[in-house]
Amino acid sequence: MIPVAICGASGYAGQELVSLLSRHPSVKITAVTSERYAEKPYGDIVHTMRSRTNLLFEKLHIETVLPKAELFFLALPHALSHDIAPQLIHAGKQVIDISGAFRLKNPIHYPKVYGFEHTHHDLLAKSIYGLTETNKSAIAGNSFIANPGCYATATLLALLPLTACIGNGEGIILYIDAKSGLSGAGRKTDQTLQFCEADHDVRPYKIGVHQHVPEIEQALRMRSPSLPNITFVPMIVPMERGILISAYVSGWNTDMSIDDLKEHYIKFYTNAPFIRILGGNRIPHTKGVIHTNYCDINIFRDEHSKQIIIIAAIDNLIKGAAGSAVQNMNSMYDLDETTGLL
Amino acid sequence: MIPVAICGASGYAGQELVSLLSRHPSVKITAVTSERYAEKPYGDIVHTMRSRTNLLFEKLHIETVLPKAELFFLALPHALSHDIAPQLIHAGKQVIDISGAFRLKNPIHYPKVYGFEHTHHDLLAKSIYGLTETNKSAIAGNSFIANPGCYATATLLALLPLTACIGNGEGIILYIDAKSGLSGAGRKTDQTLQFCEADHDVRPYKIGVHQHVPEIEQALRMRSPSLPNITFVPMIVPMERGILISAYVSGWNTDMSIDDLKEHYIKFYTNAPFIRILGGNRIPHTKGVIHTNYCDINIFRDEHSKQIIIIAAIDNLIKGAAGSAVQNMNSMYDLDETTGLL
Amino acid sequence: MIPVAICGASGYAGQELVSLLSRHPSVKITAVTSERYAEKPYGDIVHTMRSRTNLLFEKLHIETVLPKAELFFLALPHALSHDIAPQLIHAGKQVIDISGAFRLKNPIHYPKVYGFEHTHHDLLAKSIYGLTETNKSAIAGNSFIANPGCYATATLLALLPLTACIGNGEGIILYIDAKSGLSGAGRKTDQTLQFCEADHDVRPYKIGVHQHVPEIEQALRMRSPSLPNITFVPMIVPMERGILISAYVSGWNTDMSIDDLKEHYIKFYTNAPFIRILGGNRIPHTKGVIHTNYCDINIFRDEHSKQIIIIAAIDNLIKGAAGSAVQNMNSMYDLDETTGLL
Amino acid sequence: MIPVAICGASGYAGQELVSLLSRHPSVKITAVTSERYAEKPYGDIVHTMRSRTNLLFEKLHIETVLPKAELFFLALPHALSHDIAPQLIHAGKQVIDISGAFRLKNPIHYPKVYGFEHTHHDLLAKSIYGLTETNKSAIAGNSFIANPGCYATATLLALLPLTACIGNGEGIILYIDAKSGLSGAGRKTDQTLQFCEADHDVRPYKIGVHQHVPEIEQALRMRSPSLPNITFVPMIVPMERGILISAYVSGWNTDMSIDDLKEHYIKFYTNAPFIRILGGNRIPHTKGVIHTNYCDINIFRDEHSKQIIIIAAIDNLIKGAAGSAVQNMNSMYDLDETTGLL
Repeated sequence: MIPVAICGASGYAGQELVSLLSRHPSVKITAVTSERYAEKPYGDIVHTMRSRTNLLFEKLHIETVLPKAELFFLALPHALSHDIAPQLIHAGKQVIDISGAFRLKNPIHYPKVYGFEHTHHDLLAKSIYGLTETNKSAIAGNSFIANPGCYATATLLALLPLTACIGNGEGIILYIDAKSGLSGAGRKTDQTLQFCEADHDVRPYKIGVHQHVPEIEQALRMRSPSLPNITFVPMIVPMERGILISAYVSGWNTDMSIDDLKEHYIKFYTNAPFIRILGGNRIPHTKGVIHTNYCDINIFRDEHSKQIIIIAAIDNLIKGAAGSAVQNMNSMYDLDETTGLL
Repeated sequence: MIPVAICGASGYAGQELVSLLSRHPSVKITAVTSERYAEKPYGDIVHTMRSRTNLLFEKLHIETVLPKAELFFLALPHALSHDIAPQLIHAGKQVIDISGAFRLKNPIHYPKVYGFEHTHHDLLAKSIYGLTETNKSAIAGNSFIANPGCYATATLLALLPLTACIGNGEGIILYIDAKSGLSGAGRKTDQTLQFCEADHDVRPYKIGVHQHVPEIEQALRMRSPSLPNITFVPMIVPMERGILISAYVSGWNTDMSIDDLKEHYIKFYTNAPFIRILGGNRIPHTKGVIHTNYCDINIFRDEHSKQIIIIAAIDNLIKGAAGSAVQNMNSMYDLDETTGLL
Repeated sequence: MIPVAICGASGYAGQELVSLLSRHPSVKITAVTSERYAEKPYGDIVHTMRSRTNLLFEKLHIETVLPKAELFFLALPHALSHDIAPQLIHAGKQVIDISGAFRLKNPIHYPKVYGFEHTHHDLLAKSIYGLTETNKSAIAGNSFIANPGCYATATLLALLPLTACIGNGEGIILYIDAKSGLSGAGRKTDQTLQFCEADHDVRPYKIGVHQHVPEIEQALRMRSPSLPNITFVPMIVPMERGILISAYVSGWNTDMSIDDLKEHYIKFYTNAPFIRILGGNRIPHTKGVIHTNYCDINIFRDEHSKQIIIIAAIDNLIKGAAGSAVQNMNSMYDLDETTGLL
Repeated sequence: MIPVAICGASGYAGQELVSLLSRHPSVKITAVTSERYAEKPYGDIVHTMRSRTNLLFEKLHIETVLPKAELFFLALPHALSHDIAPQLIHAGKQVIDISGAFRLKNPIHYPKVYGFEHTHHDLLAKSIYGLTETNKSAIAGNSFIANPGCYATATLLALLPLTACIGNGEGIILYIDAKSGLSGAGRKTDQTLQFCEADHDVRPYKIGVHQHVPEIEQALRMRSPSLPNITFVPMIVPMERGILISAYVSGWNTDMSIDDLKEHYIKFYTNAPFIRILGGNRIPHTKGVIHTNYCDINIFRDEHSKQIIIIAAIDNLIKGAAGSAVQNMNSMYDLDETTGLL
């Protein structure tokens, strides 16, 4: 049994990690941290877990937590992860960081995107971007994973196969219209997240400036280096969990048929047990993936306009956070990728 | 007091019409029809109206209904409107048709789009497309209005001002990603509209084949005749009412600044009391317009990608149906456009 | 036109007041206050009202606000209302207080129930409890109304007619199981009111200790002085607005038939245009009353257990707050009770 | 591996069974039936299960299905279960019936409660009422379980311990106010279950005549035979799943303290791993139990009225249907009661 600690276990992604890992056959949760709830029984805060665990929340003191676990999941604020992860790595621990603190390879982005100066350039270079579907072998031999963001996961899984078709990406205009349930904003109290404000509301926000944009572009440009900047419009829809993105691809002149394109997607994800390229005209929708680690994808050519549309759906807390973190853990420890996730 | 009949008054648009018109100072509702609820008190079916009206539902028999009113609102199935409207017009009545039966000028569309052969070509030519904001003077002198569809209303109000900027439209690629609450599907019983299916679901449907596509293109091409076919992706989000559309404009090479574009929109809608071009970076959202007849619009240039994004929000049952029908009635009868709508 | 000020206009009850009063034919809103949003345009905070008003929020400075209006609606925190209302009354203004600061006649209750010592005993004696249905004549000649609480409104409208049947109330055990939408908790930011916490949750709270209990008992005991303490169990259900209470009456030995009882209710509310005693076995439900000022009530005798059940439904923000406040204003100013409320 | 068939696998309880059993370590699902979806892949109807199973729906032909499994779960309409269960039992199969067809021991109830004449009196006598918490030993040696109804489960778990305190029950008046999410009504299409009708609605129904009333009384009276008829008021609240009941106990004169009563509850459920008697004043709520097999219970004495209030919450599809069925299967096969349910 791998002893694992979950740092930041009272947030929504943290709770999902506890839920998944408490059912995982090769893992034992040995510590859960929370500044706010320290000393309290986990089940007193996360009521569904009452009687299922005796864990108490503890504060995140490195010296206390360090000996308790071999693997650390960080579901912390970005800036805090930035400070904590290096200490764990230097102490020889395995780390899967769910925050954004080590996703962007170029430190220049951090002040603007995440609001802090990045001071661990060596670890930026060393960390592996944990999109399991495209990085599985690198993850297997590594001890430090930067887990992808939720919007980035849905968007990249939808678009990465395309990069092989569009070459260097020059002249391709990508529009991503992204819809997310409210848990994506985290468990903070905020007026706009109150039930009475959010119910009945479809509310776009951070148009063109969402922190996942550089993360998405970084991954796309590893394969299509001349891809122009993307247009990314996120919006909140009135539901607890789930992300659906619709991607529109402009400027792609190809004689590739939609069937060939789809065949290409299927091949691209041959060894990806959680990617489901839907057959026929089946349309991904959030209800088809929530409470699972699946990403449903389909590619359409609008017969009327001849334009290419790609739609993908995930559960933002599972495939978009805790589930993919467990998937990475499985790869790290050479377990079957699906262990504890079906 | 104008005596009005509402044909199809038990559906969601019909109910909204009854609600608005029962508060309207210049109108008296004299008949409400429903095949299903004939003979029943209106308030027994629409509970909020209990004790506020003594109206009984009646079947839609032309001979019985005809003498009761001067103005007829048709909130009927498309094919039924197609049959009923001509009888009313020929009897000298005023008609505002909320169905799609007379929106498309070219009869060739009807079999594919609406599933029936159109046999009243003369009335197709005569009917006025009732997007009040652009057709007010034509509506004023007319007796037969084809009220716009809900998605079409939001999309056209967002895009019509743009047509003046893009000339004949050649080379412009428009992507419209449209999110709607469930009342847009009407009051029919349908498995996919059940609470347990629809809650927590963002579900795209009819990709590229929605019936509002030709309606939108017809209106856009009156001003930009070479505009290529549009890409329209509608989706259901888990809420009762509200539509938000995001429109992406590709292929537009212009040196028009975003400020000039916005200024142009404001001028375009100078005399449109229900259009609110939001200042600054304020983002339209459905909660800001539901239960009102307003359409909130803003135009953005994504500073990262330089792409143009237009966002518009309406209440699908009010500005997208009953409210705009009342607005058209006001114009028809030379009443202040906002009467009964504020 | 009566010049009115709404103090605390950014909360949910305050917003509803602005919405109702801006449509009221005899009223002009001359001031809206908010500490948090002072100087901001009202429509920048309450988006549905954009372009419909030029009002700016202002801080609640008595000297500035006093000259602006003749009638003041107070939608303030209880303790603040307690301080402000007397100043307005002494300056000769009309006041309708939506808070709980003057509802309980006996000052002894305030420290425990509302958390402050009441220091205006003279005004407690003078204020009129504004349940219009039972106090209309007293309201008409008065200048200071303590508007009822939302749960209290639904409960009292359901139970007050019963007091005439149960005499002094001795031996009657009342159980009230009360379900409320989340807006009842106000517009504060609070973790338990976040969408992700409240969605999918039916959550009882303050069992037996809700602040509306003494308010309900005070009104019931004016008619049935020996009534034992009531059992009141409030709970939150996942919706924005609406209250439904089910009341169970134990210990009542009577030979009154359910038909006679219903007849008695109908007579009791003969002159109450917003009370609908439903016919037959029609069951009140929140969807039948939301966005209206109605209270739907029905009385049942469970044929299986022979027990009496009374069910009532209101919109907590309208009949439970802003609507009844406007109803009281209408009575105060000798306007038709329904003005601006249909 | 026990080969199991799920008859009626497309409804909500059936889907939950498939979901739970597909993760159960001792079970193999060998058949899923549905009249409507026969021949279709299971994952084409239940999208979350896409790629996780190759099962095809088949029609429920006894001769085809019989050889496929050893244990049959029936999630069928009541009248159909009544016909099918005997054939399975006579063929020597194990049967867990989720319908109501064999819950009531006295056949006299069926025409009125379930709308059909019961013709298998021998099996009524033989079937075991599957409330595991109180019938575990009887279930262990048996082959035919009548699984409890969802409301009945929550109500009985809340009240059965009380029967030991109230003796024969004479003079005890029980009021049960029960709130359920919409999945309790099943997956049928019905106007009142449409999103636009159900959202924002708290709607009582079947006051005093719900089919679970005789089931509840049958179980309570096995211990308290003189208990008067209960008052049961079910209502729908706008959420997918979850039941919360509040029970009010009138007419109980006892000097038992609330602490002793609670102690008694804890003892009563000593060996019940899914019952959580909450400590202190913690209040059960649906969000604390959904997606689990737990029943949270707490007992309160309202300090103001001195009345006893018992609150219980379950997930209606899990503890109220599929979960308790699996729990019964575990007991039947002498597996640990919690297998596959944590």
